[in-house]
Amino acid sequence: MGDPVTSKCMIVVSNRLPFVLKRNEKTGALERKASAGGLVTAVAPVVVQGNGLWVGWPGIHLENPDEPIPESNPNDNTPTAGLLSKKVVPVCVEPGKFDSYYNGSCNGTFWPLFHSMPDRAVFLAEHWKNYYSVNELFAEKTIKALKSLLEEQSTATPLIWIHDYHLMLAANWVRQIAEESNLRLKLGFFLHIPFPPWNIFRLCPWSDEILQGILGNDMVGFHIEDYCLNFIDCCQRRLGCRVDRKGLLVEHGGRTVLVRPLPIGIPYDRFVKMAEIAPKVLPTNQKFVLGVDRLDYTKGLVHRLKAFELLLEKYPEHIEKVTLLQISVPSRTDVKEYQDLKEEMDQMVGRINGRFTTYNWSPIRYIYGQVGQDELAAFYRDAAVALVTPLRDGMNLVAKEFVACQINEPPGVLIVSPFAGAGEMMHEALICNPYEVHMAAEIIHRALTMPEDERTLRMNYLRRREKLHDVNYWMKSFFKAMGSLREDGDDGLPTTMQPVTMDDFDEYLSKYLGNHHKLALLLDYDGTLAPIAPHPDLAILPPETKSVLERLSNMPDVYVAIMSGRNVVNVKQMVGIEGITYAGNHGLEILHPDGSKFVHPMPIEFEDKVTDLLKALQEQVCREGAWVENKGALLTFHYRETPMHLRSEMVAQAQTLIEQAGFKAGSAHCAIEAKPPVQWNKGRASLYILRTAFGVDWSERIRIIYAGDDVTDEDAMEALKGMAATFRVTSSHIVKTAAERRLPNTDSVLTMLKWLERHLSGREPRQDANGGPYRRPSKSKGSRLSVTSEMSYTPHSVSPEPQSPGVSN
Amino acid sequence: MGDPVTSKCMIVVSNRLPFVLKRNEKTGALERKASAGGLVTAVAPVVVQGNGLWVGWPGIHLENPDEPIPESNPNDNTPTAGLLSKKVVPVCVEPGKFDSYYNGSCNGTFWPLFHSMPDRAVFLAEHWKNYYSVNELFAEKTIKALKSLLEEQSTATPLIWIHDYHLMLAANWVRQIAEESNLRLKLGFFLHIPFPPWNIFRLCPWSDEILQGILGNDMVGFHIEDYCLNFIDCCQRRLGCRVDRKGLLVEHGGRTVLVRPLPIGIPYDRFVKMAEIAPKVLPTNQKFVLGVDRLDYTKGLVHRLKAFELLLEKYPEHIEKVTLLQISVPSRTDVKEYQDLKEEMDQMVGRINGRFTTYNWSPIRYIYGQVGQDELAAFYRDAAVALVTPLRDGMNLVAKEFVACQINEPPGVLIVSPFAGAGEMMHEALICNPYEVHMAAEIIHRALTMPEDERTLRMNYLRRREKLHDVNYWMKSFFKAMGSLREDGDDGLPTTMQPVTMDDFDEYLSKYLGNHHKLALLLDYDGTLAPIAPHPDLAILPPETKSVLERLSNMPDVYVAIMSGRNVVNVKQMVGIEGITYAGNHGLEILHPDGSKFVHPMPIEFEDKVTDLLKALQEQVCREGAWVENKGALLTFHYRETPMHLRSEMVAQAQTLIEQAGFKAGSAHCAIEAKPPVQWNKGRASLYILRTAFGVDWSERIRIIYAGDDVTDEDAMEALKGMAATFRVTSSHIVKTAAERRLPNTDSVLTMLKWLERHLSGREPRQDANGGPYRRPSKSKGSRLSVTSEMSYTPHSVSPEPQSPGVSN
Repeated sequence: MGDPVTSKCMIVVSNRLPFVLKRNEKTGALERKASAGGLVTAVAPVVVQGNGLWVGWPGIHLENPDEPIPESNPNDNTPTAGLLSKKVVPVCVEPGKFDSYYNGSCNGTFWPLFHSMPDRAVFLAEHWKNYYSVNELFAEKTIKALKSLLEEQSTATPLIWIHDYHLMLAANWVRQIAEESNLRLKLGFFLHIPFPPWNIFRLCPWSDEILQGILGNDMVGFHIEDYCLNFIDCCQRRLGCRVDRKGLLVEHGGRTVLVRPLPIGIPYDRFVKMAEIAPKVLPTNQKFVLGVDRLDYTKGLVHRLKAFELLLEKYPEHIEKVTLLQISVPSRTDVKEYQDLKEEMDQMVGRINGRFTTYNWSPIRYIYGQVGQDELAAFYRDAAVALVTPLRDGMNLVAKEFVACQINEPPGVLIVSPFAGAGEMMHEALICNPYEVHMAAEIIHRALTMPEDERTLRMNYLRRREKLHDVNYWMKSFFKAMGSLREDGDDGLPTTMQPVTMDDFDEYLSKYLGNHHKLALLLDYDGTLAPIAPHPDLAILPPETKSVLERLSNMPDVYVAIMSGRNVVNVKQMVGIEGITYAGNHGLEILHPDGSKFVHPMPIEFEDKVTDLLKALQEQVCREGAWVENKGALLTFHYRETPMHLRSEMVAQAQTLIEQAGFKAGSAHCAIEAKPPVQWNKGRASLYILRTAFGVDWSERIRIIYAGDDVTDEDAMEALKGMAATFRVTSSHIVKTAAERRLPNTDSVLTMLKWLERHLSGREPRQDANGGPYRRPSKSKGSRLSVTSEMSYTPHSVSPEPQSPGVSN
Repeated sequence: MGDPVTSKCMIVVSNRLPFVLKRNEKTGALERKASAGGLVTAVAPVVVQGNGLWVGWPGIHLENPDEPIPESNPNDNTPTAGLLSKKVVPVCVEPGKFDSYYNGSCNGTFWPLFHSMPDRAVFLAEHWKNYYSVNELFAEKTIKALKSLLEEQSTATPLIWIHDYHLMLAANWVRQIAEESNLRLKLGFFLHIPFPPWNIFRLCPWSDEILQGILGNDMVGFHIEDYCLNFIDCCQRRLGCRVDRKGLLVEHGGRTVLVRPLPIGIPYDRFVKMAEIAPKVLPTNQKFVLGVDRLDYTKGLVHRLKAFELLLEKYPEHIEKVTLLQISVPSRTDVKEYQDLKEEMDQMVGRINGRFTTYNWSPIRYIYGQVGQDELAAFYRDAAVALVTPLRDGMNLVAKEFVACQINEPPGVLIVSPFAGAGEMMHEALICNPYEVHMAAEIIHRALTMPEDERTLRMNYLRRREKLHDVNYWMKSFFKAMGSLREDGDDGLPTTMQPVTMDDFDEYLSKYLGNHHKLALLLDYDGTLAPIAPHPDLAILPPETKSVLERLSNMPDVYVAIMSGRNVVNVKQMVGIEGITYAGNHGLEILHPDGSKFVHPMPIEFEDKVTDLLKALQEQVCREGAWVENKGALLTFHYRETPMHLRSEMVAQAQTLIEQAGFKAGSAHCAIEAKPPVQWNKGRASLYILRTAFGVDWSERIRIIYAGDDVTDEDAMEALKGMAATFRVTSSHIVKTAAERRLPNTDSVLTMLKWLERHLSGREPRQDANGGPYRRPSKSKGSRLSVTSEMSYTPHSVSPEPQSPGVSN
């Protein structure tokens, strides 16, 4: 297992570099200040040995972002010493923006939300904007770094490892730019905090973007399986992704993303060594109950002090015999919530000590500050009980460090909160709900009086697990998960989703369709029924799709309409099925099955402008494969066949011309469309078609399915939201959709059509259309549209409403 | 469907009666003040017509709890008018206790917790205690009422319907007393607020008791399926119940509890009528955006005002044309949080009005108070937009009342939060996340500018659903769910759990056992292997169980120990299998397979006392079937065969004698045990047995299964927690257990043994016991127990530790 760890070329991307830069106050020179966390200890050597890079914020705002990073101090013997300055990519962010990103979004929104404390979370669009753009910046820096790395060495498939809640969006841009530049890479992500359940995560207004950002990776790791399942649940419910809960997979944008529990460990052996050599610092005439935490509201410190107070109250035998040693490491001291917490702690410690202190003993020793590693190891080793009682915690490494250092015999007792990841894994600890202080006091008492055999037994279990599952094991597990991409993993779990099958639609549609409803099937053409082709003329409807669709359209209970951006004659020709409805130009033209036609009126003043715009586009923008399609009511500028490097300029030019002419520019697949500025789109057109076919109270009798792959289909999905089963066909990374579910490709649409055929031919003979449980007295009073109670392919006469378009033949 | 609604004899139990009592200040007489909520409207007639009862707090603290309830006023035409005073059962609670129960526990703990706002929840043992005892009081009152009802009329099976988060424990006592008194009844429960997901619910220190309390009912209803699944998830994860997610069932205490989504509705037709006759009150030169809420932090009022402010800022075209009419109904005004919220609202309304008001228009009309039903109906009818944007809400009836009253054409638009139950059901409304005020402003704008056809379409859908699913439909659904108990329901869902099968143990044990571990199987006898019988001698081991157990005990990788409260000779005789370990007297005596025996030393001073106590019990307590068993190290007083009415007195007597003699009294199945006061129990004995059989580092090589049905088995489950797979066999309602899972009966234990036999004979040949991934260097340094690396049935020599007992032969 040694190989995969050391031979990787890896770029690590994290909010902070593995060391902090400080400016020497005398010399003005930058200096590295080492960081000694377990993560850095494990990851830095791999980056160094694999000749990789580390991208992150340097911990200081540099006025000159190009100021060189110093090499490490010759005396530095931390794992980052080998990280040469050219292997470090500092990301410099304007201080105001950084504050909004870091304190606003990361610590003000995501920290409390992900810790399931929604009342503390603040959702501000401004912070989100900065979060978004800082993530973009990290992605750009990463790609730039990757390119320079590839110039100097050839690497099979570089690995990019993005860390934590600060950088949940970065993967998408990295992937996008890499694909555009034809770079191969693998993207992995690890979240160091909890991932909350759907019920909490859904509160986030940007939940869609965050999930899609995380899904930009190939593999996503969380501490424990619960977090994995929460994430998968959110992908399914928010994005409409297909998921595999047993295999821990999510399908997104045509890719399979692996989700894996990778519980982080500690450098176990290092802690054992430290414990072996650390001098004794605690007095031996006392039992010590130890707490070590950042001063954070998630840590449950106030509850802990109350529980200890109750212990002394209920079990006075511990007075003068037991001391709580609480170490609180200052954190986010410029945030008011943290200042308030510090005050509350100070006050409580004072009060409890005042209550119980005798002339030679105080119940609480409270250290507000850092303690050295040696001292800490001695505390861990000699404490009788460790209290790790957060209200919520991703994992909590203090619990692990404590058991590593418990080399005395007989050992002490670990108490851990079930709301920490550690509490899920370290079963043999005493599990303590920190919220109820009476119970907590009882558990501390149980720990202090636990028989030796039970203590030994529990600690043996705990130590064995942590020794085995140390931070190196975690690194290896990460590489293993990354290495198993696209092949069945060693853990026996699959690594790719099964293709969409008929069974999927049982789940998606059976309940919605029921037995007694007619079905209106509204389908986009390009990219939905027919695969996208280099030229629109080549986007042929596959014969199998055509024949299923034809059979469906001949069923008495099925109404089919094709909703296309093509002109209506062209789309009818491409599909080639009689007796169904065609909507062209995104619904501006509608051809009914009986041959009658609706054309949305073009504002007269735009009729000439269309010709002028066509000419301008052809003369000024079209070159190297670009061309303009004249669709009558609108124009489409196609750039599908142009060279990549010309596109952005062309698109900008075309857009300017279109807008100058007073048209609206909309983007489609490698195309820009010029539309007259009318309030009409596939959404309005869908409602119009349904009303025309089924009468004003159509909603009572029919079920609607809408499938499309284009942004213009979103208008329909938005208008039909809650009233139709909607599917967005998409294989791109980032698509925000109003659709209920995503389908990966046109094949899956075909599967749906086949499923419909089977389902509809299999169901019981339909009852009277007015029967069913959903019947409502028809509401004709005052309605200006005629009402039909039976389905018909003949459009009903429609008196134009004030805002409704005219009907032509 | 009319019949089931009117023909039931039903007792409704809710925190409040369906009217409030007030004391007339002049006459001093009590008067009813009617309540007009939808629930009362729907339920009261059923109670009246079925000659049922209503149990609840009368809304006033009566100095004399027997003061008669007045009959309704002759002018009263509300549905509760027919509720005669003798059909009303007031529950009077001492004011201080009521405050702790109601403001402390209900509104201070459960309200915020169940609304997934854990930071606002306060967990105080004192409040819980009062919640517990007030629930007990409600249960007693209910049973008393039921008995009096049954005296005056014979009813097939009375229905008891308990409401809401105030009374989550009551069902258990009702069930228990009813069973003791041989009363047949059906218990239903409905929760009117959300049920949170496991991740939030588990924070509650009394989650175990609450779940068991709710499971005391036969049928449990929630508004939406999400809440049902949350509840089922919690039952599985907290209580270790078997559940059926598809069938929405939970198995508990040998019963199947139905869990059903029963979305509450409104009296739709009444609202339509009110809207039809209500005079116009709103000016017509304005569009009104309407909000109607109790002033509660869950309602998102501050966010709503901000969103409206942003609307005016971003879309100034609405200035002077659109007004927000916000009605805030005062609520819980004596609680500081609610006072703070009121201040914040007052200040914001003032500020926003100050910012935008022109000389003939103010943006916000803010009514802090009640409005009459007619006025409200007019507001609902004439508003252009209703804003129902709670941060969290069980259902929200305002959304439903609004659509019922929307009789104008074209109609207005409903905006609803996805975090309300109504948001899950009313898909066709515009769904608005209240947390992000920019998006909310956009949605209000979209609502104000939505085309008529879309408005009509959406409102048609919404109105149809609410008309159909009104409050009477809800009542009927409740009766239907209750009626379908013990038979397959009309909804096609099963109503009883399948018996435990081998497959269940695939899920429970496969992963834990793995392939390469030995198995120690620790089993209680009575109630676990052998069904409980009227006399211990009759509790025979079923032949099938015996033969499976015998075959298991002959497998090389299986070690079996029977852990019983019987004396060791007796239990060995009852089981009758050679070559296994027997622990008798809860582990005070242990008989190893080789014939060697361990007896926990009886403190010498207790040897004589045993004889004295035996005599005292026999002479002073034993009568009418009671007898004392002499087990050597302890005595058991059996009262299984005594008449029910004598038991409580007998038990008390026996307990007193035992304690006076200096022994500890422990309860078992219809028995009291007298134990010498030694720190030894099935837990300590289990650890001792395991260490003796496998050596000090046994934990590395073996997996442990413990199954038991007695409270004395809890000591073992507690000691082995996190290190063993533990099963509590139980068919009683309320059992708090440290076990991971529950099994309903001895049959399911047999199924487990069969599963084990199949699993163990099917698995690959075991690797070297020291192989496997869990190997750890054996930690012999300093250990005082000899170490073996191979399994053996010969106990290892054990040097007694200071607290460990001696070994005799």
